[in-house]
Amino acid sequence: MSIKKGILIVIKENFHGVFPYLVSPIDTSGEVKCDVLEQLCEDLISVGVHGLTPLGSTGEFAYLSWPQRQRIVEVVIKAAKGRVPVVAGVASTTITDAVTQARTFEQLGCDGILAILESYFPISEDGVYAYFKAIAEAVSIPIVLYTNPSFQRSDLSIPVIERLSHISNIRYLKDASSNTGRLLSILNCVQGRMEIFAASAHIPACVMLLGGVGWMAGPACIAPKQSVELYEICRQGAWEEAMKLQRSLWILNQSFVKYNLAACIKGGLELQGYSVGSPLLPQSPLSPEGFLEIKRALVTIGAL
Amino acid sequence: MSIKKGILIVIKENFHGVFPYLVSPIDTSGEVKCDVLEQLCEDLISVGVHGLTPLGSTGEFAYLSWPQRQRIVEVVIKAAKGRVPVVAGVASTTITDAVTQARTFEQLGCDGILAILESYFPISEDGVYAYFKAIAEAVSIPIVLYTNPSFQRSDLSIPVIERLSHISNIRYLKDASSNTGRLLSILNCVQGRMEIFAASAHIPACVMLLGGVGWMAGPACIAPKQSVELYEICRQGAWEEAMKLQRSLWILNQSFVKYNLAACIKGGLELQGYSVGSPLLPQSPLSPEGFLEIKRALVTIGAL
Amino acid sequence: MSIKKGILIVIKENFHGVFPYLVSPIDTSGEVKCDVLEQLCEDLISVGVHGLTPLGSTGEFAYLSWPQRQRIVEVVIKAAKGRVPVVAGVASTTITDAVTQARTFEQLGCDGILAILESYFPISEDGVYAYFKAIAEAVSIPIVLYTNPSFQRSDLSIPVIERLSHISNIRYLKDASSNTGRLLSILNCVQGRMEIFAASAHIPACVMLLGGVGWMAGPACIAPKQSVELYEICRQGAWEEAMKLQRSLWILNQSFVKYNLAACIKGGLELQGYSVGSPLLPQSPLSPEGFLEIKRALVTIGAL
Amino acid sequence: MSIKKGILIVIKENFHGVFPYLVSPIDTSGEVKCDVLEQLCEDLISVGVHGLTPLGSTGEFAYLSWPQRQRIVEVVIKAAKGRVPVVAGVASTTITDAVTQARTFEQLGCDGILAILESYFPISEDGVYAYFKAIAEAVSIPIVLYTNPSFQRSDLSIPVIERLSHISNIRYLKDASSNTGRLLSILNCVQGRMEIFAASAHIPACVMLLGGVGWMAGPACIAPKQSVELYEICRQGAWEEAMKLQRSLWILNQSFVKYNLAACIKGGLELQGYSVGSPLLPQSPLSPEGFLEIKRALVTIGAL
Repeated sequence: MSIKKGILIVIKENFHGVFPYLVSPIDTSGEVKCDVLEQLCEDLISVGVHGLTPLGSTGEFAYLSWPQRQRIVEVVIKAAKGRVPVVAGVASTTITDAVTQARTFEQLGCDGILAILESYFPISEDGVYAYFKAIAEAVSIPIVLYTNPSFQRSDLSIPVIERLSHISNIRYLKDASSNTGRLLSILNCVQGRMEIFAASAHIPACVMLLGGVGWMAGPACIAPKQSVELYEICRQGAWEEAMKLQRSLWILNQSFVKYNLAACIKGGLELQGYSVGSPLLPQSPLSPEGFLEIKRALVTIGAL
Repeated sequence: MSIKKGILIVIKENFHGVFPYLVSPIDTSGEVKCDVLEQLCEDLISVGVHGLTPLGSTGEFAYLSWPQRQRIVEVVIKAAKGRVPVVAGVASTTITDAVTQARTFEQLGCDGILAILESYFPISEDGVYAYFKAIAEAVSIPIVLYTNPSFQRSDLSIPVIERLSHISNIRYLKDASSNTGRLLSILNCVQGRMEIFAASAHIPACVMLLGGVGWMAGPACIAPKQSVELYEICRQGAWEEAMKLQRSLWILNQSFVKYNLAACIKGGLELQGYSVGSPLLPQSPLSPEGFLEIKRALVTIGAL
Repeated sequence: MSIKKGILIVIKENFHGVFPYLVSPIDTSGEVKCDVLEQLCEDLISVGVHGLTPLGSTGEFAYLSWPQRQRIVEVVIKAAKGRVPVVAGVASTTITDAVTQARTFEQLGCDGILAILESYFPISEDGVYAYFKAIAEAVSIPIVLYTNPSFQRSDLSIPVIERLSHISNIRYLKDASSNTGRLLSILNCVQGRMEIFAASAHIPACVMLLGGVGWMAGPACIAPKQSVELYEICRQGAWEEAMKLQRSLWILNQSFVKYNLAACIKGGLELQGYSVGSPLLPQSPLSPEGFLEIKRALVTIGAL
Repeated sequence: MSIKKGILIVIKENFHGVFPYLVSPIDTSGEVKCDVLEQLCEDLISVGVHGLTPLGSTGEFAYLSWPQRQRIVEVVIKAAKGRVPVVAGVASTTITDAVTQARTFEQLGCDGILAILESYFPISEDGVYAYFKAIAEAVSIPIVLYTNPSFQRSDLSIPVIERLSHISNIRYLKDASSNTGRLLSILNCVQGRMEIFAASAHIPACVMLLGGVGWMAGPACIAPKQSVELYEICRQGAWEEAMKLQRSLWILNQSFVKYNLAACIKGGLELQGYSVGSPLLPQSPLSPEGFLEIKRALVTIGAL
């Protein structure tokens, strides 16, 4: 239940929990490897993840054509079979294109939109606001704002987030800034109008303690069982137990930050038997040392 | 004449002189305003520019769909009527897509490719090399490498430029780094295998003195006559006279750097009577103060 | 108790808890306002802070002469009367000077050194290691490494921290990076050879949950009672209660990050009746809006 | 001759030409190696440099104590014997300290002050203005503003430079930004109230063509004869000949940018027989590859 501008909006199910960022398996001819992606979705759901997020950073949205993006969303929705919400990434430099993407994904059956602003030139605060507002108004499903200052040229300032929090279906934020204090400042500022998901740059257990509702992250794709376990312990308020598990799982995030995100998760999935391939060129595949490090991390945490 | 790996390649006409970066006039329904673009090209050629460059930064390549990009290139080629070379911007995050763009533009009749690497994640030196090499090998027309560290996430290092300079049709570099010393370092390094064009962040007269062959820049689109005059004075080696003219023209570059590039040049062209409109949303149009400043600059240099 | 290279070192009292960063009150003739500083120390100790930290960032070490620095340390040691440990900031660009400072402070009676590397040119990893090692070996008291990437030109990498953690009296780290995940990575890496203090850029309650031992921060200087209360709740493991208090106290950190740190804390102390004055010129004093914001924050949390 | 606020100020000799940035030779006990420094000054003057600049970046001002700084200035003034002007670096974080330094250097007999703002926290535009104004008003000798955005935390904006240009004895700027276009913008802005010296990050011959009056730079310390020759050719307006020489000399600047500035110039001087030693610890001495590269460069340009 979320309160917006005095209007009570009842939403059957709020997004919460572990939403793995899905990789995008593409074969050498540019086709989506549907069977691999379906199997991955099926396995993730079977161990209890709470949602699926295609076309995030880890999903290489910035490297995929529009037909590839649509195909991936179709496959994920089909695989989910309504068991968990599917929140797909919409990313563009222009409002027109972003609105088209969002409408298409809603029509395909997505349960939410992860909204991303790409930019080449700097964009004014009003321009940033207009972009996300236009996406929100183009659809009736919930919007998750996504900001990643490491890779996107335009960041979401706290004043813009505050303004956006008053739009009724802008209901979540996933902030990948690595600055956890910023999350607390945002929570203090949006006063319940928006919920927060952690990114892999934050410590999920800390964000849960702050009042977060879960995390959307690449590493959850290769450690889904452990992630769900951590989430449950957090929900029970067993914070010291949570931190103990968190501390051991953190080695995955430590590796993640050292390598190309997509290469890292694709490499880990390959080790787990999913033939997802490498990231699209000219991105590099995971290096041999990277494979070793990920392998060691997965073995340590019991995910291989 | 350019010497590559001991092989003598004779090219009928080398690129040189003033290549205005063309804006991309788009109407509210997303259509390219062909008549406006054609008229602009005609007028630029009539005052003596030496080439036309659609789909550079000023041309908002990062904000245009693939059909819009193709249409713009078609219109410019048609307008040029073979009188001056057309060098169109190819920009992508993936090798596959960049190769498709380059081949299409060659088939449309372009005389050269301005090659741009977009990226989301950091790309390794080998990845950067592979990207530009693939574009060069996909076509038989000359390639101009373009690097703009202000807006593109990936810069071209001098060692990568040196490696690329050995590929026979990679023959030019346009560097928008604002570091003029870097240009001299590059010239020292490529030893005649590659020629250099200045960007608006460099002082054209200085780059000409260094041994540059011209400039590719947005401001040349609104001050083409003055730019051509400056080029001619430089070619005559009248450096102090050149610097005198350069100094007065520089106010345009000073304004240019303060505003969104596309907004600035589109604003200047509107003042000159071309209904090119504003940059695509969520970019902001030129502000009222920006219009005043550009107007004053154009009047001062005799371009309005 | 801390384990180093298999040797068991028993230290009577480990540093832990709330260490306010003290401001440096200087009058217009350049003299340290000793009475004001003594009164502040007395009041902080009386509400239960666990240590005192002169010459941190908030203490304007970078703006003080060597005689002023010595005087401040003398005054604080005298005021502390051995009731709480005094950990003074040593900061220099050269090893020679840093060693002199550290030895002097030990002789004056300091209980620990907060070691800071200033730099003008980039320093190699080996140079960074050599600097901190030299300070540690020059004294027999414990060393707290301090890194603040916002203001210091040289950051401490995790590999260098790991190397330094093997030196027996390098026992603490205060990291002001704002990246809380980095703290967990460091904790995973130093394996008990080093303890961690939060900075004002981190959420103290989160760092305590991670296994931190307290915080060294400017805001604790103007909210000492509330800080001590938060620390006690964290120590009891009442994490949700802690987070509730933390959330209300956070507004102070939100203000702190917006203004010059020294101006902010000096302004807050002036509001509380300590005539500490303004930061040294050309730093600006706290602006009128800053005063209003700090006043509001202090009233809200019950510190005014 | 320089015109300030309508008042004609005639200065016997304006600063112009090649001002080498002197290194600071310090022995292991911390003493200035006076004989080495004197010999270097003597030799530089004998090949025709137009001024001497102790305590610039290359002179490691940021690594020297106040007594060391004074000693170096004394030695240089004594060595110069009034044959060329001595312009010494004043650098501090506080106005009080900077004023003391400037007055002391004037009393020691300096002909000008190279004014540098060090900072830890960001400084407002008004604070930056106040700092430089206070130095200028404390002495009657000319001031050279020095800004180096690579190493100093605070840059000089063009509006602040414009304001400062109205103070009568602020007569020169040395800008080490690497952005040569910025120099032309500044020249357009200060309208003759201030002259410009190039730094090693700019191409001296280009800056001369722009209207600069010379350069203050570390490389001139190891290639003084060649630098003076280049200056003379520029003064004669033989720009293409100048650029030819410039192009060959540039390899020194290319090396300079790759290594610690002080290490690089100290290394080069050691190769030339001056026992200036290494930079102060924890700075690294020039690496063996660095020595090889500098040696090769010096041989190529005829300076070894």
